[in-house]
Amino acid sequence: MNIALLGFGTVCKGVYDILKEMPEYNIKKILIRNPAKKTMDCMTLDFSDIENDNDIDLVVEAIGGLHPAKEYIISSLKAKKHVVTANKAVVANYFDEFVQTAKENGVKFMIEATTGGGIPWIKNLQRVSRIDEVTSLYGIMNGTSNFILSAMNDEQKDFDEVLKAAQKLGYAESDPSADIDGDDVRNKCAISASIAFGGLVPVNSISQSGIRYINKNDIKWFNKNNLVCKLFATAIKSGNNYDAIVEPVLLDKNTVEANVPKNYNITCLYGKTIGDVKLYGQGAGRFPTGNAIVQDIIDVNENQTFDIVFNKELTKSDVIEGKYYIRIPSKLNFDNSLVESKINSENYAIIITKEIYCSKIHSFIDNNKDKSIFIARFI
Amino acid sequence: MNIALLGFGTVCKGVYDILKEMPEYNIKKILIRNPAKKTMDCMTLDFSDIENDNDIDLVVEAIGGLHPAKEYIISSLKAKKHVVTANKAVVANYFDEFVQTAKENGVKFMIEATTGGGIPWIKNLQRVSRIDEVTSLYGIMNGTSNFILSAMNDEQKDFDEVLKAAQKLGYAESDPSADIDGDDVRNKCAISASIAFGGLVPVNSISQSGIRYINKNDIKWFNKNNLVCKLFATAIKSGNNYDAIVEPVLLDKNTVEANVPKNYNITCLYGKTIGDVKLYGQGAGRFPTGNAIVQDIIDVNENQTFDIVFNKELTKSDVIEGKYYIRIPSKLNFDNSLVESKINSENYAIIITKEIYCSKIHSFIDNNKDKSIFIARFI
Repeated sequence: MNIALLGFGTVCKGVYDILKEMPEYNIKKILIRNPAKKTMDCMTLDFSDIENDNDIDLVVEAIGGLHPAKEYIISSLKAKKHVVTANKAVVANYFDEFVQTAKENGVKFMIEATTGGGIPWIKNLQRVSRIDEVTSLYGIMNGTSNFILSAMNDEQKDFDEVLKAAQKLGYAESDPSADIDGDDVRNKCAISASIAFGGLVPVNSISQSGIRYINKNDIKWFNKNNLVCKLFATAIKSGNNYDAIVEPVLLDKNTVEANVPKNYNITCLYGKTIGDVKLYGQGAGRFPTGNAIVQDIIDVNENQTFDIVFNKELTKSDVIEGKYYIRIPSKLNFDNSLVESKINSENYAIIITKEIYCSKIHSFIDNNKDKSIFIARFI
Repeated sequence: MNIALLGFGTVCKGVYDILKEMPEYNIKKILIRNPAKKTMDCMTLDFSDIENDNDIDLVVEAIGGLHPAKEYIISSLKAKKHVVTANKAVVANYFDEFVQTAKENGVKFMIEATTGGGIPWIKNLQRVSRIDEVTSLYGIMNGTSNFILSAMNDEQKDFDEVLKAAQKLGYAESDPSADIDGDDVRNKCAISASIAFGGLVPVNSISQSGIRYINKNDIKWFNKNNLVCKLFATAIKSGNNYDAIVEPVLLDKNTVEANVPKNYNITCLYGKTIGDVKLYGQGAGRFPTGNAIVQDIIDVNENQTFDIVFNKELTKSDVIEGKYYIRIPSKLNFDNSLVESKINSENYAIIITKEIYCSKIHSFIDNNKDKSIFIARFI
């Protein structure tokens, strides 16, 4: 099988190293952007070299971002090449167009590496769905934010200090926004829910709230109450309705999810006959994500793929609900009819809400000018 | 696809219920033993009715025990029928004969349901092995013993009391020996290691030590030291050598494995590029195990199976080592050169050993007449 790599960053280097040991797979061309980095004959600066090469059976896309990734994927599919991608943003935004174009051209569109890194999440979601309707999924789907939350919890340090340490260790990028504000998790949530529910869950239908404003005092309160804070993606299906949300949650400290350490991920599903299934592993990195891409390549080559089918019309509605922890500047108002208890400190108040739909709390923070509010849902 | 069920107990009833909803699968015959339970026309008391029925493509074996399960499996394979089994004892004891007979007759031999119930463990082990050499695996593979250990830890109750509660709830059998002494886990360990290492790991090469003699004082000591006790299967490969053991282990209380609750299982593997992968779920029960069997049936029908190949000659040797907790009657001697520390109570002593090979500690307890010794390895 002849393969082209789009990009030669961390992930594609992992793919390259793994495939080197597997003689039945040949990396024929690699698209790079910077002429100075052309260290191998197979490297090209021109995508059309790949698009027009009829010997290339499969294209791996790992350049990231929406454009030109989207155009490269569509062009590759139209050139009858299978596409394997690790790019969650582009998949979350153009999922149905990719699936449709792949179908029209009789090739495969593979996305294992978009979610959960080395965890065989997408494949197992699809496999479980052969028997069970998956009606709910959730999990820790971002290693950077889990690293930060774990360190804050274990070492009682403040956010900025831990973020700096994570950046130094290579667990966080210099601009960590996508990881700590929940954008990355939101893309993975949209992809996972679309696969699990058999219908398109648009990424912009998912509200998000991240961990940027969590502080030492929040962690202290959680510890005192035997709780651990994690950033979760959650999606639930009820009939043809669904709800999906990205937000911090509060877990009893003696649960599996509360004890997921460092930059690890855990992805969880519920099916009627199989019950709860949870998959734990490395959510990112050269070799884990490279491994997920190579698994997709092998599945295509050995004809062991599952078709992605969006044949259900799903409607967003209020399904997910819970009590919330809200830490809010004292001067701000919060609807008193939703408050179960409130503790006032000098500058801020901690509110525990009654059971409410997550949409309600998210529209409160989305519409509030003060961005320092921190919320977390009790599980 | 026409299917025969051997047995109609818990697991086969689960298979029956799941397949009822899937019109492409037809349960043509069911073998039962007790004529009084013949409630459907498709039921037969005579295995040869199934063996000689050329329309039957696949046989599900879930009668348990070694005989006549072994003979039924071999006869079914020789009659060119695929076999799907949930019977860990028979697989662990005759694994190579089944694999060989299936190969000779051009049919599939499928074992997902033998280990980890609804957890897609065997399939993922095989899938990971397409890329990585799996060099180690471990896990909690028995729900009954995990239920007992969890309850003893959470409620500070003694073994007998908790066992009785487990029996009442249906989590433990009236004779719980296979579950609490480690026989069940040993079968699953042999099966998992054989699949992971690509060579036969004979069940009788695996030493075992169970949880029958754990008591309240042990649990107290573990709690005081922030440890949680779980019954583990562990197997490690080093070159062409392997080591495998079933024994209680002591985990830091803030780990994923320490927080696996009730009767749940977790199965873990390590591969060079994928890193650590852990799979959590229901390790037994009508629907989870039924689900695993139906997944195997679908894989056979859709030609999505992986061949089981034992092409490596593996040699048992000392690889697994660790420090041990040993609670021993005061009157018994233990090799002083292996002792790191010792606390004497009135009737018993708690010994913490130096780092030693597990074979050493197991030969000590196997050769000792006093069967009340409890051991656990520090992880």
